Amino acid sequence: MKHFPGIADEEFIRGPIPMTKQEIRVQVLSKAKIDSDSVVIDIGAGTGSLSIEAALLAPQGKVYSLEREAAGVELIRQNAEKFSCWNLEVIHAAAPNGLEDLPPADVIFIGGSGGKFTEIMQEADRLLKPGGRLIITAITVETVSRALAEAERRPYTINCFQMQVSRLKKVGPYHMFEALNPIFILTCTLPESEGKS
Amino acid sequence: MKHFPGIADEEFIRGPIPMTKQEIRVQVLSKAKIDSDSVVIDIGAGTGSLSIEAALLAPQGKVYSLEREAAGVELIRQNAEKFSCWNLEVIHAAAPNGLEDLPPADVIFIGGSGGKFTEIMQEADRLLKPGGRLIITAITVETVSRALAEAERRPYTINCFQMQVSRLKKVGPYHMFEALNPIFILTCTLPESEGKS
Amino acid sequence: MKHFPGIADEEFIRGPIPMTKQEIRVQVLSKAKIDSDSVVIDIGAGTGSLSIEAALLAPQGKVYSLEREAAGVELIRQNAEKFSCWNLEVIHAAAPNGLEDLPPADVIFIGGSGGKFTEIMQEADRLLKPGGRLIITAITVETVSRALAEAERRPYTINCFQMQVSRLKKVGPYHMFEALNPIFILTCTLPESEGKS
Amino acid sequence: MKHFPGIADEEFIRGPIPMTKQEIRVQVLSKAKIDSDSVVIDIGAGTGSLSIEAALLAPQGKVYSLEREAAGVELIRQNAEKFSCWNLEVIHAAAPNGLEDLPPADVIFIGGSGGKFTEIMQEADRLLKPGGRLIITAITVETVSRALAEAERRPYTINCFQMQVSRLKKVGPYHMFEALNPIFILTCTLPESEGKS
Repeated sequence: MKHFPGIADEEFIRGPIPMTKQEIRVQVLSKAKIDSDSVVIDIGAGTGSLSIEAALLAPQGKVYSLEREAAGVELIRQNAEKFSCWNLEVIHAAAPNGLEDLPPADVIFIGGSGGKFTEIMQEADRLLKPGGRLIITAITVETVSRALAEAERRPYTINCFQMQVSRLKKVGPYHMFEALNPIFILTCTLPESEGKS
Repeated sequence: MKHFPGIADEEFIRGPIPMTKQEIRVQVLSKAKIDSDSVVIDIGAGTGSLSIEAALLAPQGKVYSLEREAAGVELIRQNAEKFSCWNLEVIHAAAPNGLEDLPPADVIFIGGSGGKFTEIMQEADRLLKPGGRLIITAITVETVSRALAEAERRPYTINCFQMQVSRLKKVGPYHMFEALNPIFILTCTLPESEGKS
Repeated sequence: MKHFPGIADEEFIRGPIPMTKQEIRVQVLSKAKIDSDSVVIDIGAGTGSLSIEAALLAPQGKVYSLEREAAGVELIRQNAEKFSCWNLEVIHAAAPNGLEDLPPADVIFIGGSGGKFTEIMQEADRLLKPGGRLIITAITVETVSRALAEAERRPYTINCFQMQVSRLKKVGPYHMFEALNPIFILTCTLPESEGKS
Repeated sequence: MKHFPGIADEEFIRGPIPMTKQEIRVQVLSKAKIDSDSVVIDIGAGTGSLSIEAALLAPQGKVYSLEREAAGVELIRQNAEKFSCWNLEVIHAAAPNGLEDLPPADVIFIGGSGGKFTEIMQEADRLLKPGGRLIITAITVETVSRALAEAERRPYTINCFQMQVSRLKKVGPYHMFEALNPIFILTCTLPESEGKS
């Protein structure tokens, strides 16, 4: 069955871990261009919301979700079961650990780096297929700044924007604005012909 | 061939008419849940960027693009040709004119109403299939306010948010923020069982 | 002693009532152009943060703070005492009630209207001096829409903008964005010569 | 005569150089707490809008405006004349050049650094009085990131936020949002007792 990206936040089993909100997931998934047989690696997968949607978009593919917090790993497993994502494998590890044995990927997400951003980028260099997409979501000034600097040293085509969403919540006869925190979405695309010559 | 929503702005043939930007289109298309055989009506289609993406998502379906400006009609035609959208029909009319003979639709977009918002909503009532999605993009205070009021009088499930994107543009060694105008996206979903009993 | 507008949020005694945040207060006070002898009316004063700053800017003037919630009235009194604002009078009333006996004002703030927006605007018509400033802060789509419509029927010069602030909060070695809800600030200025002919 | 901060953008003589917009100036001036006899240094003064407002707030003080572009220097001079700011001195230099002979300052603004951010911060260390305020406005990811890192190495109390304003522009019967680029405002306050013991 076809999956339309953009599962409502409340459909996920949630815990104390921050979740990538629906409006953000939709943007990230658009940049990811996940095909039915894509291989996806989700680093710092949190609640697993992005991994789940990736897995639903790639029923003949495979999603590897790395998460260092035990609570997150458990949530991802529960959500994978809820959404019947048998093609999703959870790896309890603090990246770059846990990446060494993974296969080449069409798409890599970095949602959290635990201070090891440079090391993770080096692993991404090794893992990303020609034409592949590396998508970094950053909620801090330092991460977006470092991510841009690291990305520019590599042969990527870069796209980056900041997005701020305010949901309109019904309160009596009025609609109040409820701000979500702004986020940066950095998309790095590897050339198809990468590595030739 | 599978279409991944989110065509870059610069791939469209553009004119003096404002275009729905990529990041906005991606959100609207996520809400629209367009299937391969969907029928879509795009009211106030402008440059046609949303219509084109809808047409590519519904190769066995049909997209009707209404636009009252001759310059817009011409742009939509050129873009339909560029993207080989043979399932897109352009209608040169100021809605609600031009809607009378259209078939029931799975998805209706309202991107411009030319001051006839209430009349267009009434036509949408008639045209939208059970389970269908009506998605309104508003760039003015007055439109979002009226759209919310009109939508609440009807049996819709309503979702609304404001979104503001700033693109990071490379200037020398720096990345400057370039703000796009904020936009409201209002999604009205009709119940599946609408009209029974 | 000179007062510099922009008291930090945490310096106010706060309760369960939403407070106008520092960054917003600064904008509103800039539009208000409060002089040392100004008369100011603050309708829907909430915690009183704006009233307090107005009172400190107008030591030879007078500030009337209307608030309908008893909890708010108590907070305003406590804050007035904390900041030694002897020129601030709290009125426990739901506007337009409580406005009938007030003197002409240089500045009127509307921060809350309890559904009586039109009636309050009529009272403002009567109370605002020539050259006076009426400043409306709106956190809902409906209020900003109605306020603009009401303001345009009157002889005001109008300025309106939406502002969204995200504070950068230190988390470990990083700075995270913490979004405040967006707000609309509508400034209505009466001509100096108003009422002549 | 008392100056109320927040001169409208269109009152300044403008050229090809970007200007700090009114809403931003108001925030920066609130953080600056400029007194009637303050000494202010404005580095990368651009059109001079911030310098002019500072000079009007400090009639017995002094404002030094550094600008490296000749076109900017000329604009600042014209604006200083227009607003009768005899206490404003323009210095045509690329900071840190031009700072060596300036007196200790109550307030230092950094609006542009021309790639010499670290050197300018070192000069600010030397020039800022105990209790003084250093206020940095940043429009790039790299500048805010570096400014935060530099500020944290020093004995400052730090406040930082991002602000995005959209003006509501009248178009026919509607009010359209017109986004201004987001900006970061970083305020660094030196302790009063700095350097004692």
